[in-house]
Amino acid sequence: MDQRKSFGSDNHAGAHEAVVRALSQANTADVTPYGADPWTERATAALRTAFGARGGAFFVFTGTAANVLGLSLLLRPYEGVICAESAHVNVDECGAPERLLGSKLLTVPTRDGKLTPELIGTRLGDRGDEHRSQPRVVTISQVTELGTCYSLEELKSLGEFCRAQELRLYVDGARLANAAAHLGCSLADLAACTDVLSFGGTKNGAVGAEAVVVMAEELAAEVPFLRKQQGQLASKMRYLAAQFEALLDGQLWLRNASQANAMARRLAEGITGLPGVKLCQPVESNAVFASLDPAHIARLQQDWHFYVWDPAAHLVRWMTAYDTAEADVDAFVSDIQRTAAG
Amino acid sequence: MDQRKSFGSDNHAGAHEAVVRALSQANTADVTPYGADPWTERATAALRTAFGARGGAFFVFTGTAANVLGLSLLLRPYEGVICAESAHVNVDECGAPERLLGSKLLTVPTRDGKLTPELIGTRLGDRGDEHRSQPRVVTISQVTELGTCYSLEELKSLGEFCRAQELRLYVDGARLANAAAHLGCSLADLAACTDVLSFGGTKNGAVGAEAVVVMAEELAAEVPFLRKQQGQLASKMRYLAAQFEALLDGQLWLRNASQANAMARRLAEGITGLPGVKLCQPVESNAVFASLDPAHIARLQQDWHFYVWDPAAHLVRWMTAYDTAEADVDAFVSDIQRTAAG
Amino acid sequence: MDQRKSFGSDNHAGAHEAVVRALSQANTADVTPYGADPWTERATAALRTAFGARGGAFFVFTGTAANVLGLSLLLRPYEGVICAESAHVNVDECGAPERLLGSKLLTVPTRDGKLTPELIGTRLGDRGDEHRSQPRVVTISQVTELGTCYSLEELKSLGEFCRAQELRLYVDGARLANAAAHLGCSLADLAACTDVLSFGGTKNGAVGAEAVVVMAEELAAEVPFLRKQQGQLASKMRYLAAQFEALLDGQLWLRNASQANAMARRLAEGITGLPGVKLCQPVESNAVFASLDPAHIARLQQDWHFYVWDPAAHLVRWMTAYDTAEADVDAFVSDIQRTAAG
Amino acid sequence: MDQRKSFGSDNHAGAHEAVVRALSQANTADVTPYGADPWTERATAALRTAFGARGGAFFVFTGTAANVLGLSLLLRPYEGVICAESAHVNVDECGAPERLLGSKLLTVPTRDGKLTPELIGTRLGDRGDEHRSQPRVVTISQVTELGTCYSLEELKSLGEFCRAQELRLYVDGARLANAAAHLGCSLADLAACTDVLSFGGTKNGAVGAEAVVVMAEELAAEVPFLRKQQGQLASKMRYLAAQFEALLDGQLWLRNASQANAMARRLAEGITGLPGVKLCQPVESNAVFASLDPAHIARLQQDWHFYVWDPAAHLVRWMTAYDTAEADVDAFVSDIQRTAAG
Repeated sequence: MDQRKSFGSDNHAGAHEAVVRALSQANTADVTPYGADPWTERATAALRTAFGARGGAFFVFTGTAANVLGLSLLLRPYEGVICAESAHVNVDECGAPERLLGSKLLTVPTRDGKLTPELIGTRLGDRGDEHRSQPRVVTISQVTELGTCYSLEELKSLGEFCRAQELRLYVDGARLANAAAHLGCSLADLAACTDVLSFGGTKNGAVGAEAVVVMAEELAAEVPFLRKQQGQLASKMRYLAAQFEALLDGQLWLRNASQANAMARRLAEGITGLPGVKLCQPVESNAVFASLDPAHIARLQQDWHFYVWDPAAHLVRWMTAYDTAEADVDAFVSDIQRTAAG
Repeated sequence: MDQRKSFGSDNHAGAHEAVVRALSQANTADVTPYGADPWTERATAALRTAFGARGGAFFVFTGTAANVLGLSLLLRPYEGVICAESAHVNVDECGAPERLLGSKLLTVPTRDGKLTPELIGTRLGDRGDEHRSQPRVVTISQVTELGTCYSLEELKSLGEFCRAQELRLYVDGARLANAAAHLGCSLADLAACTDVLSFGGTKNGAVGAEAVVVMAEELAAEVPFLRKQQGQLASKMRYLAAQFEALLDGQLWLRNASQANAMARRLAEGITGLPGVKLCQPVESNAVFASLDPAHIARLQQDWHFYVWDPAAHLVRWMTAYDTAEADVDAFVSDIQRTAAG
Repeated sequence: MDQRKSFGSDNHAGAHEAVVRALSQANTADVTPYGADPWTERATAALRTAFGARGGAFFVFTGTAANVLGLSLLLRPYEGVICAESAHVNVDECGAPERLLGSKLLTVPTRDGKLTPELIGTRLGDRGDEHRSQPRVVTISQVTELGTCYSLEELKSLGEFCRAQELRLYVDGARLANAAAHLGCSLADLAACTDVLSFGGTKNGAVGAEAVVVMAEELAAEVPFLRKQQGQLASKMRYLAAQFEALLDGQLWLRNASQANAMARRLAEGITGLPGVKLCQPVESNAVFASLDPAHIARLQQDWHFYVWDPAAHLVRWMTAYDTAEADVDAFVSDIQRTAAG
Repeated sequence: MDQRKSFGSDNHAGAHEAVVRALSQANTADVTPYGADPWTERATAALRTAFGARGGAFFVFTGTAANVLGLSLLLRPYEGVICAESAHVNVDECGAPERLLGSKLLTVPTRDGKLTPELIGTRLGDRGDEHRSQPRVVTISQVTELGTCYSLEELKSLGEFCRAQELRLYVDGARLANAAAHLGCSLADLAACTDVLSFGGTKNGAVGAEAVVVMAEELAAEVPFLRKQQGQLASKMRYLAAQFEALLDGQLWLRNASQANAMARRLAEGITGLPGVKLCQPVESNAVFASLDPAHIARLQQDWHFYVWDPAAHLVRWMTAYDTAEADVDAFVSDIQRTAAG
């Protein structure tokens, strides 16, 4: 284990101490398994309230699983999912949606990871043609894989477009907390106009827990069966629920996301104006995308952990986490400065 | 939460305190996600050694997921899985094998949940017939869903039969620890002659963790991809690994299983000879299957938590856990005696 | 090619000459592909009328495909299909339903291949339990794989039970014509109380064509997409439609089925009372199930083509076809008599 | 039915009279079903020889089915298929590969529908990364969906690249005959360096029949099971085989394809140099892609049947068939000239 803070990803961090403490506190007597326990009842009730989700909230173990479960609520076998080419669901899930859902992803190239009504419209021409997978769900990532956020106006516009087009809207919210922190809005604001969302705990300081939030009541009845069938029903559910309870308590999730976002901004500010270093996406969450000289990338990677996002473009991704400190950023910036200065 | 110990299932219990402590201890600095961390390296190495598994060990979150992952290593699309009608994989996974693997389960009725070469032979007549799903894998549960254990001789005989018939042998080991405790053998003894096994942590005192143990080296290369695709790749893997490390440390898993088994035997002994109470399966693990007067069942369920396994047969299942104490059993037996006495 | 008539199956026969003639007659100028042609319009309209099917009729190539398409209209991913253990869909489709639908078959042992409300009821106990595949569709074969027919009263009783239980009823009608001929009823009579049926052309004298008949209008919209996705959309659809048009013209299908049925009855009568020969199922279509001395079976198979259905029970299946003649039956009966006489 | 020849697609045509005659001639006595008949034996032997296919040839009903069956021989669940964005398998099969195979299509934009080693190379970066679908099969269409052909040199280069990269090469040969006719080569030439191909009969003058040609012997054993499971096993197989026998007899398939190709060239020559009409792809088979004034397109469509391929680009596709006559082309060209002249 390196002593230096990783800028590789927000899942390199451990769990927030409040989360681990909650696990210990949940470790009491027998309870009914599979979610009929007080922790699950409290945590799902809290999520239901926070999102205004009449369909309820359901815990699963991973982000891929949350996406598959969420999408499976919304699709018939011949229906497809419109998403950005850069979407996690398209790029980083080893084909799980195709394998587990059997559905085609109808991808759209984007500049910043964000879909627009216009971009979605490019995939709607095949409706009614039996030779084509039928577009039925739009999935967006909030925040996107490029660290950008949909504004509330953009979300509203997408939601209205989807409703008008009889498309359903699913949100991959592995970093939804960071979006709420960036936009200064509530989770319910982010959920308005959507059908199903995931709400990521793992990257926010959990040990490993994600929630699938179902907005409409009529979508909820299928979740227990689909979750079980997809291998995501925890028998000792209390330990998933307790993690979320800890994150929801006093809005720890928001403090965690705010800290991560602030550190990304601090990092971005620290490198602004450096010769040969260019910010490549607006910093709207806890990720900084920058391009720099490949030799400088190599030199920095000797001491620091981060990913090259696109080798051809000399593009790197630097991520902060809930536990990234100002001193971590400052040390990293200082090394970048030194490297850039040659 | 009831004050009385549940006899409903071994997943009603919380986690062993050593497991929870291990989670806290693993909650240190940044580590590489997805399993490239010291906890995962140590725990998988320990499992590899304990089982003699040249293919390695891989963590997942649930028993259903372990079974699906294990079977997915062994099957082509037109191949089927021979299993007992009572198998968890057939009865209790909401059709996950059919949905996620696409494979047909070729079920065999059994008396005690156990397959034999003869029973397996009844499903081999269709080999080579293109109209029939081709039997390729045999899956057994050790211990079975009826609380019975395959002896080492039975395992050897099954393994040799499978090898001779070019069948692969998968073991659903959600309660493998209880089998080792009952048989007084090593995990490697249980794994000999098999291809892939699951090794259940959750029912043995974990928070929630299962291992897929791959015996042959040539089967291992596919696991990472299949695990990820099936939504079972933990980003913060250390927290799964730490649970297993705690269970493996000083053979805690064996002490836990032995305690549960001993309590089941104590319970069985306590009810032996009671009027109207009949033991229905040999007690070879931590489950007691008994039949008794339905009115007595109803009266007992007012105070105690357990499941009616087969209402028509007045058959109940009483399960003990790693943390069931002698006093728990004695109190329960005493109530059964009082009820039976009418 | 053997000169003797096969009693192996009704698909050993060629096609009725009227069907082949219809193919030639359809071989005219260009038409729009994929079913927008006059033959398809006429044949599907005729089927719609004959069945009283508001949802329409759709052609596919094989019986397995018809069953998969029909069932796919009726299922969500976690829902299962109740069927007889002996059902073609369970036994003879190489696991297609599990692979292509992902659904679990919930099988029931039967005496005569026929389900009853009571038998169906044995699989309904798991409703609402997230660990169990949820029964949603009942599928029956009319005629059954054992050559038996559901009476109209039995169909009505099944249909009402399914409706009361919110189960859907799918009919595998690979030999539906033979049932209509046996019962002396219309196709609409057979379709009443059902949701979707297949109507087999191939075994009735077609070159190779099956129809999926959709009773309710609201089920029809998905068929084109599912059929295409399942690889069953004929580009030159007119050649499937023309086959059905020929079979429907002047009720050729009924004459074909009546002839096959009559020949099975003639065969059954011919062997009644022979020493050592026992009829094992009532003869209600074009199949005769009989048991006889295995040495006699072997001797007969030297000259005649038929299948041993169950070697352990010395059970054979003798099938007649639309083109089986009295002389074929008489010659076969004569050989059976000679063999039985020792 | 329109009196004018359709330029919509080569599946608007009927079947060649020799094919229909072969169906009649095959309509004789009983034969063993499922392919154990003389027609199937002869036709598959002929295909095996023509392609040099040690694994054999297998009939199915549709092009989508052939692609799914062919690809299913070559893939494990986490493996993906590299294809051109314009590939039929990606665009025109209603998501069948994703649904029936569960595999991800790894698409590459192309200029002319053709993949190159360089283009394939852009999708190989993810190998070994468990988060990514693993590229395993390359599929090309010969001829492509844009009417272009891979030269033998290009095929060789692709084949060698695939072998070097441990990729398998599948060829969607719905119009393979047209490629052989264009290149003046044998089917074996087209098959060299490939693993599995489809060979389309339907667009070449069949009623409806496609062959899956398996080059390597070790791939063949799975075909019968996968074909059956995918709903593509014809019980009266002789009628599929007889179609291919007719097409193979005296190389009718080649004459048919040559005629179609010649008519496309005639059409292309006829419009070359017309004001406002632009050929958009080289004419290397039986398709002509041209752009022209949208008003002219609309006027032509009043009298002639053809498809607008890309409305935004004013791009139309004109296809000829085996039965397109010079007079058909001349009449069409004459109308295009008149329209273009305004």
